[in-house]
Amino acid sequence: MTDDSFHVFDTTLRDGSQREGINLTVADKLAIARYLDEFGVGFIEGGWPGAVPRDTEFFRRARTELDLQNAVLVAFGATRKAGTTAAEDPQVQALLDSGAPVVCLVAKSHDKHVDLALRTTLDENLAMVRDTVEHLRAQGRRVFVDCEHFFDGYKANPKYAAQVVRTAHEAGAEVVVLCDTNGGMLPSQVQWTVARVKAETGARLGIHAQDDTGCAVANSLAAVEGGATHVQCTANGYGERVGNANLFPVVAALELKKGMQVLPEGKLREMTRISHAIAEVVNLAPSTHLPYVGVSAFAHKAGLHASAIKVDPDLYQHIDPELVGNSMRMLVSDMAGRASIELKGKELGYDLSGDRDLVGRVVDQVKAREANGYTYEAADASFELLLRDEVVGARERFFTLESWRAISEQRGGGEQVNEATVKLHAKGERIVATGEGNGPVNALDRALRTALERIFPELAGFELTDYKVRLLEGRHGTDAITRVLVETSDGKTEWSTVGVAENVIGASWQALEDAYTYGLLKAGLTPSPEA
Amino acid sequence: MTDDSFHVFDTTLRDGSQREGINLTVADKLAIARYLDEFGVGFIEGGWPGAVPRDTEFFRRARTELDLQNAVLVAFGATRKAGTTAAEDPQVQALLDSGAPVVCLVAKSHDKHVDLALRTTLDENLAMVRDTVEHLRAQGRRVFVDCEHFFDGYKANPKYAAQVVRTAHEAGAEVVVLCDTNGGMLPSQVQWTVARVKAETGARLGIHAQDDTGCAVANSLAAVEGGATHVQCTANGYGERVGNANLFPVVAALELKKGMQVLPEGKLREMTRISHAIAEVVNLAPSTHLPYVGVSAFAHKAGLHASAIKVDPDLYQHIDPELVGNSMRMLVSDMAGRASIELKGKELGYDLSGDRDLVGRVVDQVKAREANGYTYEAADASFELLLRDEVVGARERFFTLESWRAISEQRGGGEQVNEATVKLHAKGERIVATGEGNGPVNALDRALRTALERIFPELAGFELTDYKVRLLEGRHGTDAITRVLVETSDGKTEWSTVGVAENVIGASWQALEDAYTYGLLKAGLTPSPEA
Repeated sequence: MTDDSFHVFDTTLRDGSQREGINLTVADKLAIARYLDEFGVGFIEGGWPGAVPRDTEFFRRARTELDLQNAVLVAFGATRKAGTTAAEDPQVQALLDSGAPVVCLVAKSHDKHVDLALRTTLDENLAMVRDTVEHLRAQGRRVFVDCEHFFDGYKANPKYAAQVVRTAHEAGAEVVVLCDTNGGMLPSQVQWTVARVKAETGARLGIHAQDDTGCAVANSLAAVEGGATHVQCTANGYGERVGNANLFPVVAALELKKGMQVLPEGKLREMTRISHAIAEVVNLAPSTHLPYVGVSAFAHKAGLHASAIKVDPDLYQHIDPELVGNSMRMLVSDMAGRASIELKGKELGYDLSGDRDLVGRVVDQVKAREANGYTYEAADASFELLLRDEVVGARERFFTLESWRAISEQRGGGEQVNEATVKLHAKGERIVATGEGNGPVNALDRALRTALERIFPELAGFELTDYKVRLLEGRHGTDAITRVLVETSDGKTEWSTVGVAENVIGASWQALEDAYTYGLLKAGLTPSPEA
Repeated sequence: MTDDSFHVFDTTLRDGSQREGINLTVADKLAIARYLDEFGVGFIEGGWPGAVPRDTEFFRRARTELDLQNAVLVAFGATRKAGTTAAEDPQVQALLDSGAPVVCLVAKSHDKHVDLALRTTLDENLAMVRDTVEHLRAQGRRVFVDCEHFFDGYKANPKYAAQVVRTAHEAGAEVVVLCDTNGGMLPSQVQWTVARVKAETGARLGIHAQDDTGCAVANSLAAVEGGATHVQCTANGYGERVGNANLFPVVAALELKKGMQVLPEGKLREMTRISHAIAEVVNLAPSTHLPYVGVSAFAHKAGLHASAIKVDPDLYQHIDPELVGNSMRMLVSDMAGRASIELKGKELGYDLSGDRDLVGRVVDQVKAREANGYTYEAADASFELLLRDEVVGARERFFTLESWRAISEQRGGGEQVNEATVKLHAKGERIVATGEGNGPVNALDRALRTALERIFPELAGFELTDYKVRLLEGRHGTDAITRVLVETSDGKTEWSTVGVAENVIGASWQALEDAYTYGLLKAGLTPSPEA
């Protein structure tokens, strides 16, 4: 953990989930929290318990299912309603009930919003801030206060906006966060305002920037230059409208450009992987052109640049891509491809550095298969099988498919039936087995297990923990190619496999076949040549 | 045309085409140039004649095929080679031959690059700049000079970097453009450097920013604050690696935030349309989350915001979206309250403001169904059907399902077969139909069409244009609930529907049923009560 002098505060799970097209389950939220914690952020805002049922559930499950190493959880909520007390306000009580050690309260600081949106008086709004902060502090919580629409508010009525900051600060809020809620600010305004408010109030200040002018990253950095020591961001910049300040370039600029250490040592090198992993969880394709982490971020196309890069990569790159876990790609040669295959092989325990031919064959295989829709970035186990194919010279199999069939049916009475049959060969036997399930893929998985568990009892310990489907070539509707990613667990570790076919069930079969083959290899079994 | 005091300089056709995945034909370039001219930029950099054959051809055809109203064409090229004269250098001659009235020359300004990449002396580099500018000026061309890697160069050797600027200026270059070629700068550094170099040299300065820190827009604006009066940008930020400064938010900030007029009157309102049109020409889907012009840029999801927006949209929007040709959209989700349902209804043409009960029922339905995995923000048509259910008091149907069955099979020889059968009732008839497809959902869709097309010939004009599958509760593997989103087109407009079930095929059935029901309603057909 880093010290408390600078806060990296992530709100992917709360504000980030406002992005159009994102709809997170509690399981998604827990998975993202683990990635954010692994990255080393100090604070994870989990949602609004009491207002959003899913968020209440998230905090409940987080108590037993999240084992955070770096971060602490933050519950987001509003100041008490007008005309009541904080202790009597059920929404405030829900924040306490969430069990989160930190509460981030949203408060109005723009006089017009107090009047038109909150419909109360300016004095009552101040009392709402003071009471709620004091109540939560008295209950032992750390409190941050988000001043909504602060920058517009400060332009309209600087005295009142500053008074809200002062009130929160004096009531015991540890950080008062100036929010550019509608995202309309430019960096110079942000820096000027933060510096001024800091001088006027003496409060510790934070920044929450939205990207409506395309300046959210710059606005966050400008606020730090103005004296803010707390930045609120979201992974990949997810958020309402255009989005929020993107966590990754903000943190990278602070560490690499401004020489601050805001993450635990070595974490920045995990950035590309974690950015892509979170994109997979929210089921949005990782944006190829994101700063630092995009697959194109260090891809060089121009001939002018390419020759200079051969002399010295620093001539055309602002940082060494390895600092953020990314890599340089030359779009005109496979040099970078070979290097990353070697690195990946090393990561998996295969020393390929001595065998140029082998690396070349793997590069060719990966290129050919990725051109057909496979992706190995999120399917390590399938990549390792591909690599072993080239090392061993043939696919290692525990079983060989003869045929499969899946039937899904909704009967006249509304009853649904899913049934699958597989016919396969293993250890010299021909096996026919049938499974039922709640969907055709589930039925296929059960048929496969039924067929194999007698011969490979290890299979009983494998569980399918995630299953994702993506249609490629989206302009062809149901004619598109289907890519399936499957994650399997043996209770200790998890592995991911990929399948691609026109047919969702065929693609699922491939991913399942890889998943079980990899699992059996990992369990130490020897493939049977006669399979 | 605006006056010459500020230059909006677009380099989509030159630097923008370096983006990974973009490959422009001459016809594409001419089409983009027309859009840029229509938008009102002052300068269009068309390419590098003499170095890139396609660019030579572009300038040739531009003479007869482009009738520019606002912009002038710029030819990009390098200073003369070391050890020759500008008049003898064929690449310099090609710039003159292009017929472009303006030439933008790239020059080295970082001492290390002169040494390592150009492999000449610092003095010869200055002579190359001076000679080439003077030669082109003597031939009647306006000349701008791009100082490559200026900011890093100025850090390493400020005296030499400034000397390059001074040399270009004194030789007759109208603008000297400071380029952050590797994109590593932050706004405060850019502003400081521009102001300083302006004071040191007296030259008119421009800025060329790349987006590697995610700050290209902010860096461009910071340069203007530092005294630059010429900004080089690309449409939608296309460019090498992460990209270039995005023309649209730069221009919007200058006009709407800084009160400068940099485009002809009224052109800003064309921005969204032109951004999307250029995306179509380069064949990249318009990015939904671009500032100002993205379809999500003014989309509101949170209930907290929606209630305030009903009071006054300005409360939650930094500008009126119409100023940039975009529009506000309300997204329906379980975070939404009554206010966003009312606004969404209004957008769809239903005035719900008078009926509190109805709105309440719709909110309850949306919340209940989203809790079960439905999502309506990306499924407008399903939401409209849900809304009509409540308005009409019952689901309007054109057909009623009795049963369906889908069979997927991979046979012994590897052959795959997908077949589906539907049994349904429409216009008093019972219909049984079978379809084959490349997957079970495709087969189901074909069976449904076969069943209905005789009765509803309108169906023949509907096409499934996108199909997305998402497993919810990802921790349960193939036991998870499946959500399917389908996009359908009738050739003029598109609509989106959603289905949720344990079974991917059941979920697809629901989404298809909604898709065809909505399409038939939209086509003006009346649902048959006896369906």
